[in-house]
Amino acid sequence: MAMTGVLRPGHAQIRVLDLEEGVRHYRDVLGLVETGRDAQGRVYLKCWDERDHSSVILRQADRAGIDFFAFKVLDKATLDKLEADLQAYGVSTERIPAGELLETGERVRFEIPSGHQIELYAEKKAVGNGLQVLNPAPWTKASENGIAPVRLDHCLLYGPNIAAVQKLFTEVLGFYLVERVLTPDGAGNAAIWLSCSHKVHDIAFVEHAEPGKLHHLSFLLESWDEVLRAADIMSMNNVPIDIGPTRHGITRGCTIYAWDPSGNRFETFMGGYQPYPDYEMTTWSFDGLGSGGGLDYPQRKLHETFLSVVT
Amino acid sequence: MAMTGVLRPGHAQIRVLDLEEGVRHYRDVLGLVETGRDAQGRVYLKCWDERDHSSVILRQADRAGIDFFAFKVLDKATLDKLEADLQAYGVSTERIPAGELLETGERVRFEIPSGHQIELYAEKKAVGNGLQVLNPAPWTKASENGIAPVRLDHCLLYGPNIAAVQKLFTEVLGFYLVERVLTPDGAGNAAIWLSCSHKVHDIAFVEHAEPGKLHHLSFLLESWDEVLRAADIMSMNNVPIDIGPTRHGITRGCTIYAWDPSGNRFETFMGGYQPYPDYEMTTWSFDGLGSGGGLDYPQRKLHETFLSVVT
Amino acid sequence: MAMTGVLRPGHAQIRVLDLEEGVRHYRDVLGLVETGRDAQGRVYLKCWDERDHSSVILRQADRAGIDFFAFKVLDKATLDKLEADLQAYGVSTERIPAGELLETGERVRFEIPSGHQIELYAEKKAVGNGLQVLNPAPWTKASENGIAPVRLDHCLLYGPNIAAVQKLFTEVLGFYLVERVLTPDGAGNAAIWLSCSHKVHDIAFVEHAEPGKLHHLSFLLESWDEVLRAADIMSMNNVPIDIGPTRHGITRGCTIYAWDPSGNRFETFMGGYQPYPDYEMTTWSFDGLGSGGGLDYPQRKLHETFLSVVT
Amino acid sequence: MAMTGVLRPGHAQIRVLDLEEGVRHYRDVLGLVETGRDAQGRVYLKCWDERDHSSVILRQADRAGIDFFAFKVLDKATLDKLEADLQAYGVSTERIPAGELLETGERVRFEIPSGHQIELYAEKKAVGNGLQVLNPAPWTKASENGIAPVRLDHCLLYGPNIAAVQKLFTEVLGFYLVERVLTPDGAGNAAIWLSCSHKVHDIAFVEHAEPGKLHHLSFLLESWDEVLRAADIMSMNNVPIDIGPTRHGITRGCTIYAWDPSGNRFETFMGGYQPYPDYEMTTWSFDGLGSGGGLDYPQRKLHETFLSVVT
Repeated sequence: MAMTGVLRPGHAQIRVLDLEEGVRHYRDVLGLVETGRDAQGRVYLKCWDERDHSSVILRQADRAGIDFFAFKVLDKATLDKLEADLQAYGVSTERIPAGELLETGERVRFEIPSGHQIELYAEKKAVGNGLQVLNPAPWTKASENGIAPVRLDHCLLYGPNIAAVQKLFTEVLGFYLVERVLTPDGAGNAAIWLSCSHKVHDIAFVEHAEPGKLHHLSFLLESWDEVLRAADIMSMNNVPIDIGPTRHGITRGCTIYAWDPSGNRFETFMGGYQPYPDYEMTTWSFDGLGSGGGLDYPQRKLHETFLSVVT
Repeated sequence: MAMTGVLRPGHAQIRVLDLEEGVRHYRDVLGLVETGRDAQGRVYLKCWDERDHSSVILRQADRAGIDFFAFKVLDKATLDKLEADLQAYGVSTERIPAGELLETGERVRFEIPSGHQIELYAEKKAVGNGLQVLNPAPWTKASENGIAPVRLDHCLLYGPNIAAVQKLFTEVLGFYLVERVLTPDGAGNAAIWLSCSHKVHDIAFVEHAEPGKLHHLSFLLESWDEVLRAADIMSMNNVPIDIGPTRHGITRGCTIYAWDPSGNRFETFMGGYQPYPDYEMTTWSFDGLGSGGGLDYPQRKLHETFLSVVT
Repeated sequence: MAMTGVLRPGHAQIRVLDLEEGVRHYRDVLGLVETGRDAQGRVYLKCWDERDHSSVILRQADRAGIDFFAFKVLDKATLDKLEADLQAYGVSTERIPAGELLETGERVRFEIPSGHQIELYAEKKAVGNGLQVLNPAPWTKASENGIAPVRLDHCLLYGPNIAAVQKLFTEVLGFYLVERVLTPDGAGNAAIWLSCSHKVHDIAFVEHAEPGKLHHLSFLLESWDEVLRAADIMSMNNVPIDIGPTRHGITRGCTIYAWDPSGNRFETFMGGYQPYPDYEMTTWSFDGLGSGGGLDYPQRKLHETFLSVVT
Repeated sequence: MAMTGVLRPGHAQIRVLDLEEGVRHYRDVLGLVETGRDAQGRVYLKCWDERDHSSVILRQADRAGIDFFAFKVLDKATLDKLEADLQAYGVSTERIPAGELLETGERVRFEIPSGHQIELYAEKKAVGNGLQVLNPAPWTKASENGIAPVRLDHCLLYGPNIAAVQKLFTEVLGFYLVERVLTPDGAGNAAIWLSCSHKVHDIAFVEHAEPGKLHHLSFLLESWDEVLRAADIMSMNNVPIDIGPTRHGITRGCTIYAWDPSGNRFETFMGGYQPYPDYEMTTWSFDGLGSGGGLDYPQRKLHETFLSVVT
């Protein structure tokens, strides 16, 4: 099988300070589809074009941030194999029983050196994307509810030890390094973009003293016109925008960063190129992040919030 | 490694009736970059954002069509493994020595039941995409030379025995079936779209009596505006258009089909969704190809040329 | 005043074979806003971004077609002046009393040599576009109901004597000729595009034996992405498409022609350039309409229905 | 004639600190076409799709800014009539002889209460837009040289007494007020957008203590994709961006503000709606300019440079 191992980002559990306010944001403004609520009160949502039951799970809590970020793997044999590989590599893993998340099979959870909880799972109920399986239309009314991204695309996490994180993702989990920002002295990486596919990123990390922090959860749009529409909808709903609309030099993606009502940053973006594991990695100097256009290609500036505001 | 085995379409060798006329089309109108000519007189081209030496090779011949379509695989060990797997499956393979194509390593060639020559290879010189490796711009002037697609995306081939072809691609080469059109009686597949990645197609086949035929070679654009620009450029250069601009219901791709000066059909398209191997396949009824909007979603008609004109 | 005389197309009364079927098309698929029904049973609609009460009036009748096409003029003094000018030119005019159409002032109606009823009026109730007058948002939810064009833009009418029609529009009503298609012998005009503004057309005519025919009523979209969305929505609703999506060489507009349930053709389009009265007119040879790309720039063909199907 | 009086912005003479640096910017980066140089050393440029000889004239000087902004009027009779009207209104006018600007007829120059020099003229040599007059293509290679706007669209000027300016433009020159920003006390206008057409602005003013200042000269693009392309090209050429890409709430235009090498701000934008003289004016509160989204609809903030940086 050409696509093996880790397939893609599957779900993220996000902490919000007020659940209903969070639901209004993610469902009515961002335009995800609510697919369930569980006994703990968590709310499950998915992007309209995702096929599995849920990709964003909201949990009410005292502080914002991310509980865990999970990848779907090819099948149960892959899950077992990756668990064994993680343990052999020296990573402790925990099995979360099937059903702990609605419509989701067993998950293998582990902490990575940046202090984040990562999960792998092989099974989540296929609920479809609302289109017919026979002779489908290309989209439906639901595609225009709120911003309506097609999928949870990736996340950017902040924490310490990203060299060790990179090693774990590339040596055990089958990811490869697509782009990186060097440290000011050029001796190491200040930020890394990792892919398990031909997406320009399935997960990314920035070196940061405090462990386990969320920079943003990112959702994919299909055109630059949709990025403008997202900007308009954010403004109509008083969603505070951090940066954008603009283009990242890094990944070439065209983007808006904004904040949910609890202060968790999210991104709606389109585009970027499609790398393969045999591609030469792209390198940004530390200055390149700002004046080189890495963060904001048109404006070539390092917006102060990029390095300082996380949840 | 999450991306293993067969990575992507690598190159296609196309027969043209007049070499310089073909070069003018592929280089000056379609906007590929010419990267070399060999002792046999073959001309090598690549899309501007491709990293390897060449993806389209033009060979002058008495009749149009495709000589072979090749996939790049992860590495030499993968090449050996896939060759052994093919042989174990009962497929005869041939090793073409490194250098037979410029800047290209050894290729494993085999004929599939539809009568097409398919190749696998692991090595082709990385020549880059014309952007800096450090702090690159998102594109260059070369991105606006002619239609200027970003990559050779896939091909659609016509020939017999596509059930056997599907079995070979899915059981040996690691592809999965993304979409299909049923035969009129619904008992089999009249057309299949296969992926070795999360592209909606890396190769596709239509059941057809005559073996080894080319329906089209397809090139990826990045926006619907670029599809319009491609249509304008085709018209400016008297490139005859077969269908489009329009949207395929199948794959959701937004497309133009047109003919090169030798009568080989090519496609410039954008969009479509991104499937994964765990997705439920999409099925089109035979009528769905036409009136269901499979071929031309806006017009819901089966353009007569779709089933009858191949090279 | 720099904008004087005739301002813009104001309303068109269209005959439909079944009123409710027509309403469903124009309101729910095309996405106009229903603004009233009168004692005769006529249904009034407007595009979301139009400010006046109505631009499309549907009347149930035994045969499809257009009853009249009307222009709004600057003010009542202009209406009186243009009426006097028409009479002085030898055109009979009729005053239709205020209120005969809902929320519409007195209209001056006259027949032009092509056999069409044209109206001028100065007053129609301003109902706004649904946005606040203070600190408005750029659009609202209503902008995404159906295809949702921003305005009734122009119409194309078929009838005899278009040389006389051109003379009337340019010498009395203040229009100028923007583009034309020559007759096969080059001695006269087979088609004319006329503007009273810097729109590329406010009204257009094709020479045709039968008087008073409608080729299409045209609605403006704001992007090529919206043209694709319109194509998708037409297909979802089984609206038969005549031509497109494509670009007209004439006017450069990017377009779809389709039919309402009664067989009246309508257009949804975007773009085209903005001419001024001092611009040199653009001329198309008769062959240029087809092979010159006048009608369909990408495909350079004269779709047979263009010259033969009218209501 | 429905389009009478003042037709459109015709030319602007801009002061640059270094002529060749200015030419490189306006010709090679912005992508205007150089059409001539005169004995004084002034350089003449036009947008590719403009028909007349020149719209931007560069003059080398010690300080940046605008010398004059000119409108083309319908014909010489109109020029005489408007000159007489201005004088009757109490405005002194000066006749600049034909030929003082290359290929340009007599100009009527006058100073308005904001301290700006405004000109009217009726004649400028038609040089065409590089397309054939018979069966033209929709665009040419020149449309992709640099940012390549289609026209000089409008300017925004800063100076005192804009109430008097508004009175002059609306009572004498035939413009109408499309949008305005109120002063903080709501008693007057802090900014006004004026149209002589159905463009959302042909000229705009902001109340400002210092007379005769230029805020920006604005150039029209045809799509939001072209705005992104403009942003990329600016960054590739180290053009400093002030604001954007973003959408103005005012006019709904989608925009980038940036600076030429001499510090003159220019805008590249697309979109906005098309008003008519009978439309109700749109009003923005003074706070609406910032938090109401008037300047930057997505970000709802008043960028500090907007009110402070002019040349």
